[in-house]
Amino acid sequence: MPTDIEIARAATLQPITAIAERIGIPEDALHSYGRHIAKIDHAHIRALEARPEGRLVLVTAISPTPAGEGKTTTTVGLGDALNRIGRRTVICLREPSLGPCFGMKGGAAGGGRAQVVPMEAINLHFTGDFHAITAAHSLAAALIDNHLYWGNALDIDSRRIAWRRVVDMNDRALRGITQSLGGVANGYPREDGFDITVASEVMAVFCLARDLADLEERLGRIVVAETRARAPVTLADLKATGAMTVLLKDALQPNLVQTLEGSPALIHGGPFANIAHGCNSVIATRAGLRLGDYAVTEAGFGADLGAEKFFDIKCRQAGLSPSAVVIVATVRALKMHGGVEKKALGTENVAALEAGFANLARHVENVRRFGAPVVVAVNHFHADTEAEHAALKALCADRLDVEAITCRHWAEGAAGAEALARAVAALADGTPRRTPRFAYPEEAPLADKIRTIARTLYGAADIQVESKAAAKLAQFEANGHRHLPVCMAKTQYSFSTDPSLIGAPSGHVVAVRDVRLSAGAGFVVAICGEIMTMPGLPKVPAAEGIHLDADGRIEGLF
Amino acid sequence: MPTDIEIARAATLQPITAIAERIGIPEDALHSYGRHIAKIDHAHIRALEARPEGRLVLVTAISPTPAGEGKTTTTVGLGDALNRIGRRTVICLREPSLGPCFGMKGGAAGGGRAQVVPMEAINLHFTGDFHAITAAHSLAAALIDNHLYWGNALDIDSRRIAWRRVVDMNDRALRGITQSLGGVANGYPREDGFDITVASEVMAVFCLARDLADLEERLGRIVVAETRARAPVTLADLKATGAMTVLLKDALQPNLVQTLEGSPALIHGGPFANIAHGCNSVIATRAGLRLGDYAVTEAGFGADLGAEKFFDIKCRQAGLSPSAVVIVATVRALKMHGGVEKKALGTENVAALEAGFANLARHVENVRRFGAPVVVAVNHFHADTEAEHAALKALCADRLDVEAITCRHWAEGAAGAEALARAVAALADGTPRRTPRFAYPEEAPLADKIRTIARTLYGAADIQVESKAAAKLAQFEANGHRHLPVCMAKTQYSFSTDPSLIGAPSGHVVAVRDVRLSAGAGFVVAICGEIMTMPGLPKVPAAEGIHLDADGRIEGLF
Repeated sequence: MPTDIEIARAATLQPITAIAERIGIPEDALHSYGRHIAKIDHAHIRALEARPEGRLVLVTAISPTPAGEGKTTTTVGLGDALNRIGRRTVICLREPSLGPCFGMKGGAAGGGRAQVVPMEAINLHFTGDFHAITAAHSLAAALIDNHLYWGNALDIDSRRIAWRRVVDMNDRALRGITQSLGGVANGYPREDGFDITVASEVMAVFCLARDLADLEERLGRIVVAETRARAPVTLADLKATGAMTVLLKDALQPNLVQTLEGSPALIHGGPFANIAHGCNSVIATRAGLRLGDYAVTEAGFGADLGAEKFFDIKCRQAGLSPSAVVIVATVRALKMHGGVEKKALGTENVAALEAGFANLARHVENVRRFGAPVVVAVNHFHADTEAEHAALKALCADRLDVEAITCRHWAEGAAGAEALARAVAALADGTPRRTPRFAYPEEAPLADKIRTIARTLYGAADIQVESKAAAKLAQFEANGHRHLPVCMAKTQYSFSTDPSLIGAPSGHVVAVRDVRLSAGAGFVVAICGEIMTMPGLPKVPAAEGIHLDADGRIEGLF
Repeated sequence: MPTDIEIARAATLQPITAIAERIGIPEDALHSYGRHIAKIDHAHIRALEARPEGRLVLVTAISPTPAGEGKTTTTVGLGDALNRIGRRTVICLREPSLGPCFGMKGGAAGGGRAQVVPMEAINLHFTGDFHAITAAHSLAAALIDNHLYWGNALDIDSRRIAWRRVVDMNDRALRGITQSLGGVANGYPREDGFDITVASEVMAVFCLARDLADLEERLGRIVVAETRARAPVTLADLKATGAMTVLLKDALQPNLVQTLEGSPALIHGGPFANIAHGCNSVIATRAGLRLGDYAVTEAGFGADLGAEKFFDIKCRQAGLSPSAVVIVATVRALKMHGGVEKKALGTENVAALEAGFANLARHVENVRRFGAPVVVAVNHFHADTEAEHAALKALCADRLDVEAITCRHWAEGAAGAEALARAVAALADGTPRRTPRFAYPEEAPLADKIRTIARTLYGAADIQVESKAAAKLAQFEANGHRHLPVCMAKTQYSFSTDPSLIGAPSGHVVAVRDVRLSAGAGFVVAICGEIMTMPGLPKVPAAEGIHLDADGRIEGLF
């Protein structure tokens, strides 16, 4: 099997105008970025709202393991397969972050024969959306310190500034800084730090906004600091939102690319899946639903985090009603959940698979609580055995009454996911479109929302809110934010807050260490355990091997 | 007269493919960014090298004053006028920096009827070149601290790291920081700081590189730190250059746009004019010379800094031979050099003009030393009087034997600069193409190069090199950098290092406070006086007034 980059290079891409034409987008609604990437004009996106809505399919996964699950690959493969069986389908994905490419993560554009292309462009600067978000965030940061410098008319308490800075790079040295050093001309020294751009609230706002006006309103609600009297200070108070919106104007237009098999893909926005909701933009998803009879999208991490936030935050805010949910699992990963070491994954082990099945089972049950029908996609890896796949299918049928379908899109492209596509189409077509059953009602107190998620979806006995966090929750509620959904920030590797508790742990206690208000995005973040918002680089960063070859082609990026 | 933005909006832009076609660039050599902006493919740029070279015209200016001179406006107007009189001309300009747009500077795309368009895009993210430079610079910064974190195999002295960080924003709070705070996981605390992106050596390298291979080589020569044994550490030592080149690959392709009158303009790169050389990219200038019979370009600040660096650094490195130099002056600015206050500029004052003429005179004499013929463009402002223009013309003719031509391109477009265009074409056509007479030979000691510039061009009695700077010069020479040109970093407002000494001061002493090695760019920076590499925002930043209007158009940016 050739590598991802070899496959991508060997592909003949269609002009993006041809891809657009097939889903009814005229050339004058496109802002092209070369021949294979285009943004869809705001005016065209607005006009789409009048069209009928297609059916929304969410792709989520079991709790991730070092074995890999292939969620993005499956999203792409499923979209290709739906198109292959004659269902007009648009794929909606997140944009990859630049920083991790230079560490060890590799690209984020699918893999094998289920990729979005041109992959180098998508993984690097793409259409500059993340740079625009970084610039808008940086402008807000500069305006805050400039306000302090010129007399601090709003009486901001410089010890209570919540707006950190961002850069789209893995740079641990910037996690904690003191700034404004060097004397009078440089302002009032204070502590600060940088997160990676995808952790910016601007990113979360960008991905939840309906349009430019909603974007500007949401930016204005972002609370960046408190006054010395403990009143919130927003970006509207700092008169930052007009200029930030100008910086984000072009970026907010969704990006159209294609898969290796010529399916249209909207790749737009990419918020963190821990301190934010981890889904592509609402604008792209809503557009995809109107451009296709089906829109296939994915959510970050496993279903406990990704699908829950997709329903309780994104669908609730954006009025979306998924018609089917695909949960991606692999034999390898379930064996790891059953206790097998990574190096032993090459050996058939049905017993371990059966033990690890508990992880998948809980995710299936959880997703069903939201009222959406479920199908399991078993992403085939070459060392898997027939017996293992047969055992997994039987477990799914017998214990969960859910269909499990083996997929080979990585090796075979759309043809390898045809069975999955037929099952998904049947499920989606057979499901009336209705508002999901959310995990908790809007009006519940914030702590109750966290507790409900922990008990119902994580199998926890209870939550334990640290006193500082409890005081902040009370303050948020007093300030009128009780109605907000919560955004759980916990490890993706376990239903608990301990990443080593794989499988399907029960009876644990979820410690809520801290909470944060994301008033612009419209949620309260519950931080359970250590959450990293600025990754570091490994000892030998991928950057050392990335270069242009003699023909000017990029090597070492993936 | 309508505002710049009103004029720009009223214009009907041609498709960029049509602009390209007129200078012989086929559509498949373009990477479009929407309908009115395109990058020209590396392969096409390479192929151009075989074509005959047109004539190069430099636009420079007197020492800037608060009255404004209109150098970019004149560059655009001259280019338009040359095309109007039938001379195929390409305009080569610098890209504007994002940060200053939110302060008080306004845009940098010309003005009145002499503008490059689409001005909003050019002034904001444009094609993302500066974002790519920021990302490449940030990657290098992250790799340095990552190297320290993982054992410091190169034995870098963390107190002697010269590589600061950059952001494309006016943010005084980042000028001085301590970083890597917060414990073991965040690295070894040290002092650091941020400059604005245009001050990055990556930007200078970008603008002096011949092609991608030269770019990567130059990046590799950049000295970012010293070891504890005081040996230089380069970006090649850190294995950073391959990934940085990948990040810069697309950006290095020059950007093609048009003027209001449809002239082709290459807008590419934009290094600081103090700690760097202040000219657009060598790649764009060399391409412009082969795409047009004439290429008109500009250099930052007044001729003492901009033209000197253009000749001694850019022309020397890139093998360019200017055929004519335009020095832009205004009656208003010369009256200020003659001692008139800004608020009194509306009153006719021939005596002050005659006093201030000394500034223009010295710039004309200086430029002639480089062996290029000179013409003076007197950029007309509405309060100027006939008597003032007549007096200035007479002074130029009688005392300098140079033609001074009144230009009205701001109000009238190309028609207003026709006389200038005819004079420039005649001068350029009549001048055999030859290597400039540089201000100093390569082989002179570094301090002698600085002294020669100060004495010959600035009218100084001598230089005074502070002991720390002298020691560094000795070290640079010992490390093999004696042959490098020097890049003077001093105030642009005076021939001296005192910005209040306007006109044409003589006999002053130029204090060289510090020197810096830019080994990748290929020059040694001589810092004379306080040089700001990170601007701040004013009390009421322009950002507060920037917003989208009800039709989604940008307001308040200019």
